[in-house]
Amino acid sequence: MKADTLITGISQLVTASGNGPKRGKEMRELKIIQRAAIAIVSGVIVWTGKESEWKGEAEIVVDAGHRAVVPGLVDPHTHAVWAGDRLADFEARTSGLSYEEILAAGGGIRSTIRATAAASQDELVALGKPRIDSLIASGATTIEVKSGYGFTPAAELAMLETIQVISQISPARIVPTLLIHVPPVSAANRPSYISEVCEELIPEVARRKLATAIDVFVEKEAWQIAEAEQFLEHAKRHHLAIKLHSDQFHSIGGVELGVRFGALSADHLEASGPDQIAELAASSTIATILPGVSIHLGIPAAPGRKLIDAGAAVAVGTDLNPGSSPLFSTSEALALSVRLNGLTAQEALVAGTINAACALGLKDIGRLEASCSADFLVLHGSDWRELVYTLGRNAVRDVWIGGKRVQE
Amino acid sequence: MKADTLITGISQLVTASGNGPKRGKEMRELKIIQRAAIAIVSGVIVWTGKESEWKGEAEIVVDAGHRAVVPGLVDPHTHAVWAGDRLADFEARTSGLSYEEILAAGGGIRSTIRATAAASQDELVALGKPRIDSLIASGATTIEVKSGYGFTPAAELAMLETIQVISQISPARIVPTLLIHVPPVSAANRPSYISEVCEELIPEVARRKLATAIDVFVEKEAWQIAEAEQFLEHAKRHHLAIKLHSDQFHSIGGVELGVRFGALSADHLEASGPDQIAELAASSTIATILPGVSIHLGIPAAPGRKLIDAGAAVAVGTDLNPGSSPLFSTSEALALSVRLNGLTAQEALVAGTINAACALGLKDIGRLEASCSADFLVLHGSDWRELVYTLGRNAVRDVWIGGKRVQE
Repeated sequence: MKADTLITGISQLVTASGNGPKRGKEMRELKIIQRAAIAIVSGVIVWTGKESEWKGEAEIVVDAGHRAVVPGLVDPHTHAVWAGDRLADFEARTSGLSYEEILAAGGGIRSTIRATAAASQDELVALGKPRIDSLIASGATTIEVKSGYGFTPAAELAMLETIQVISQISPARIVPTLLIHVPPVSAANRPSYISEVCEELIPEVARRKLATAIDVFVEKEAWQIAEAEQFLEHAKRHHLAIKLHSDQFHSIGGVELGVRFGALSADHLEASGPDQIAELAASSTIATILPGVSIHLGIPAAPGRKLIDAGAAVAVGTDLNPGSSPLFSTSEALALSVRLNGLTAQEALVAGTINAACALGLKDIGRLEASCSADFLVLHGSDWRELVYTLGRNAVRDVWIGGKRVQE
Repeated sequence: MKADTLITGISQLVTASGNGPKRGKEMRELKIIQRAAIAIVSGVIVWTGKESEWKGEAEIVVDAGHRAVVPGLVDPHTHAVWAGDRLADFEARTSGLSYEEILAAGGGIRSTIRATAAASQDELVALGKPRIDSLIASGATTIEVKSGYGFTPAAELAMLETIQVISQISPARIVPTLLIHVPPVSAANRPSYISEVCEELIPEVARRKLATAIDVFVEKEAWQIAEAEQFLEHAKRHHLAIKLHSDQFHSIGGVELGVRFGALSADHLEASGPDQIAELAASSTIATILPGVSIHLGIPAAPGRKLIDAGAAVAVGTDLNPGSSPLFSTSEALALSVRLNGLTAQEALVAGTINAACALGLKDIGRLEASCSADFLVLHGSDWRELVYTLGRNAVRDVWIGGKRVQE
């Protein structure tokens, strides 16, 4: 065998193994190869194994210096493109107001929507790109980015176009999602807005391939089940995959709706109870939990432990956004999921790699095995557990995407 | 007036004002100067004010680029020198064991003591220095470092000597503390160990000025009140200041003991109740809280909000250590104190600057006013609140210590 690049000197190569999401106990089953090597051809892994067992040739050999290697992280839930800041909200909340009170009062998300609408594409790219770079530095090699601060169909399209521009200039794989986020302020305007989204926005997004999935914020203060159902039906008709913001503050049926529509993922789940956990465990829908929101807003942590114990497939993301999760590190999201959601270190790694990839419908990333994209991280230390153990410091040394080192 | 260095282009200069700790409501009173400048002579601030009001000359002018400036952070509680790792403990805990169970079983701290005892001074410096560098990068300009993994008097002296070496090669001001940490395993050996510490270790540490304060771990599984009292009496006789680890798991009288001895600070306080809060509020002892421990161990957060509301002076530190707080960022400790301990952004800044300085008995740091050391941070953004708002990314751009830029 002849490789373009051979990575040697890997103290531990640590990865989930085999295609598809890992559920329940499977989330603790990692493949660990000591003194490993990775062979790469044209950006794709062609072989992994013990370094001593490599029999081929390689054009370039890169020594990882007896450091641990894990798959590139997949951040399956971000809102990384926004303008303005929410520092005033942050101050208001730390003096006692709840996120929902700020939302209901027309502050919160709506102030971000106004600022984002007022910004040019160049400005939004200049603001969004460094945030994506922070996530990459923290280990993310694939990053989902949602629209949703656009509000009007035209503004949503503009947001997706901005995400496309960032995608073109970023070394990471960017996965765009059309997010139907906040309803019109006046209830009277909801039906016409829903029509516009269903009849114009969704078809155009699908036609221009500006997003691979739709996401709807299902919540007492946002979209109701019957409304969300209309969005999902139209999205399905146009072959968009489905994701849902559900059970963040109230469990009003978002999980059940998502499962019924075969959603890729149901995200948040802080307010999910035994029924929702059982629904997810019995479904193909990934349960994506977002510990940054719990730490930032002080809301209960999603029941990660219970979801896994029930047999669900759990993924973890940053939910990077200015209002409810200013968390700029995908690896720190994993570290927080161990502390806040009761995941083990092994489960956190699976949640941030293969399961997060499945939450985006991607099969060629999230694990280090032949035929997968050569997206991997060289850590500073020789023990992979430092990735989820360390707080407030980046455990990631080198980031490789598609066989190329993009950060060292 | 003639300055060596003039810092201009400061969007906001944000600082506590006036000498001494800030208590209760005073912790929300920040002095904010818009479009400010700082004049420095020989590493000391000689003037601050609006840039337009500076009338003097300056040899060097440094433009902060319309960025916010805050005082250098003071990390008043770290155990930054250790060998070995606690990744196995971390795995054990995330599979259900408690910190105290691991401690009682002879694991936990004792494994760090064994590894630290086995390491040479060179090895400990090589391990400790990068950790101090991480704290500096996160904004710490003064850092307390405790001994306490030495156990035998000779090994404690060696640890303090190691801290002295790190102090000499670090740009930060390092404040060494003699920590009497873990008792002998056998109860029969406690009296002789106490004698050794009181009759030999404390006098020698004081004579050689290897530490400015003593600290004792008062806890059910560590030192009892009557034992701690002996250490404190001897320390007082030798003019060492006093600090205490108290109320981390159980409130067994550590706070009351500290207050009675006029301690600089009582640290941890996770298990403190109304009586301990009232004691601290009525005393000169700083209440130092350590949110890294709460997030890492999942123990209750110290009652920061209640302490301030009662009128206490609260400080915040990382408690950087491998077992209970692998938190390598002093600014993230402040960010966590807002989320976990209920501090406002203003209170967190005061807790991490002037109050933390007072917890170390230092008067010339922790605020940006004439006659203070020119220790300050230039943030990435123009709004100082990003320092405590941002999670998982360093909001600190440049770190200045004693009028010199040590990181940019």
